[in-house]
Amino acid sequence: MSNRTANNPAPIFGSGRELRAAASDGSFTGHTSGLATGFIQANLVILPRDWAYDFLLFSQRNPKPCPVLEVGEAGDPHTVTLADGADVRTDLPRYRIYERGELVDEPTEIVNRWREDFVLFLLGCSFTFERALLDAGMTLRHQEENVNVPMYRTSIACRGAGRFQESPMVVSMRPFTPADAIRAVEITRDYPAVHGSPIHVGDPAAIGVSRIEHPDWGDPVTIRAGEIPLFWACGITPQAAALVSRPPIMITHSPGHMFVGDRSDYEFRI
Amino acid sequence: MSNRTANNPAPIFGSGRELRAAASDGSFTGHTSGLATGFIQANLVILPRDWAYDFLLFSQRNPKPCPVLEVGEAGDPHTVTLADGADVRTDLPRYRIYERGELVDEPTEIVNRWREDFVLFLLGCSFTFERALLDAGMTLRHQEENVNVPMYRTSIACRGAGRFQESPMVVSMRPFTPADAIRAVEITRDYPAVHGSPIHVGDPAAIGVSRIEHPDWGDPVTIRAGEIPLFWACGITPQAAALVSRPPIMITHSPGHMFVGDRSDYEFRI
Repeated sequence: MSNRTANNPAPIFGSGRELRAAASDGSFTGHTSGLATGFIQANLVILPRDWAYDFLLFSQRNPKPCPVLEVGEAGDPHTVTLADGADVRTDLPRYRIYERGELVDEPTEIVNRWREDFVLFLLGCSFTFERALLDAGMTLRHQEENVNVPMYRTSIACRGAGRFQESPMVVSMRPFTPADAIRAVEITRDYPAVHGSPIHVGDPAAIGVSRIEHPDWGDPVTIRAGEIPLFWACGITPQAAALVSRPPIMITHSPGHMFVGDRSDYEFRI
Repeated sequence: MSNRTANNPAPIFGSGRELRAAASDGSFTGHTSGLATGFIQANLVILPRDWAYDFLLFSQRNPKPCPVLEVGEAGDPHTVTLADGADVRTDLPRYRIYERGELVDEPTEIVNRWREDFVLFLLGCSFTFERALLDAGMTLRHQEENVNVPMYRTSIACRGAGRFQESPMVVSMRPFTPADAIRAVEITRDYPAVHGSPIHVGDPAAIGVSRIEHPDWGDPVTIRAGEIPLFWACGITPQAAALVSRPPIMITHSPGHMFVGDRSDYEFRI
């Protein structure tokens, strides 16, 4: 549903606001890699207030996959920090609804699912540092191949926090030549708020990824001869945690279908 | 009580563990700047579980003054991350107890004050990056003058979170030559977990500090002709927040009398 082709090219959005408007009116439901270039992208997690402390603590204990950028007030679906008054019930292209750890729906808005005790969390997304990699002259294979970035469940355990149990870290993968891989580490270390430097380089099996050609989320990409895969901690990690820890209700963005804010990605460079 | 002199020199501690042992048996009650060189130092905040979410959210919204490094389980006074099993009831040289925003006591241990609903928080401390500044050939005036670092309440407002209301950011100050000030910015930007780069350079009045020679906490230091003051966000900020927001009970370290862990300060360099 989200792949782009010659006949179905990526739409052009001049800003996060334009992308959110198209998501809100239903005209855009695709993934957001490479779109609204220059604006912060973020993972969405919505939980009942009763689960908010456990999730904030889970994030504090696992900052590489869960860098928290904004937390809302209970009952308020509007952002303050990443965008002024965006509505997270409508302004993302696609959502996932988990009930007791089961994925039950993947709608394009969640207006009727909102509750007065819901708290929104926005977490940094690696799409944010992709512009810095492109500006340095690198190419991103998933953008070249017009697909979503591949994401994998790993054997790396996130620390538990309250009812959020120990659960697997999720990673995104981008292949590079060795020289570009080194530059990508150098560049992304300056973006700790959007996952920072990679958590692994090289052999996928070393982090429990047995089938690199079959990602758990997103799409496969080509790894060419001589290239080495780099793995970054990924904001889908809370969704993997939900499968294990089974909160009564948790709503997220659909993988790759991010919240796009109004702030420049360069603001998140330290 | 804490100043060092020729007749009362700073003790030598080879590790965080040694310093904690001396704090625990009561033989050391002084401030910790420059001590146990190379080991992480941290601010302590203890609050009832009922206030823990508001404080964690306050920290998330004010990451420069409140970089959270560790959060305990309710009722457990032992650390896991910064040191293996340190007891925060005894292992710091001196504490402050605030009841409804009033400073009521400044004891050297809090064993009898501990409660089953208490949660410990450890926040990054700028003493951690001081080694990197010294290694770069700089001198730190408060260490030269054998006093605690000067700290000031500013006119910069921290964002509120729940019952933690908007309240003033606290800063520590170190004077440098202009060339060293630039290097100090370059070096400390790599330590975001321990306050990172400064929040202000130059005119103290611009951040509401009217009397640089009268710090609100710690000791005054000499600013020599041609030097420029650098101000870093400071982990005393939660104590300023307590004065405003008046939680029923909050226990902290005494300013400058830090928790010292087992991990290398260089681990907190990004």
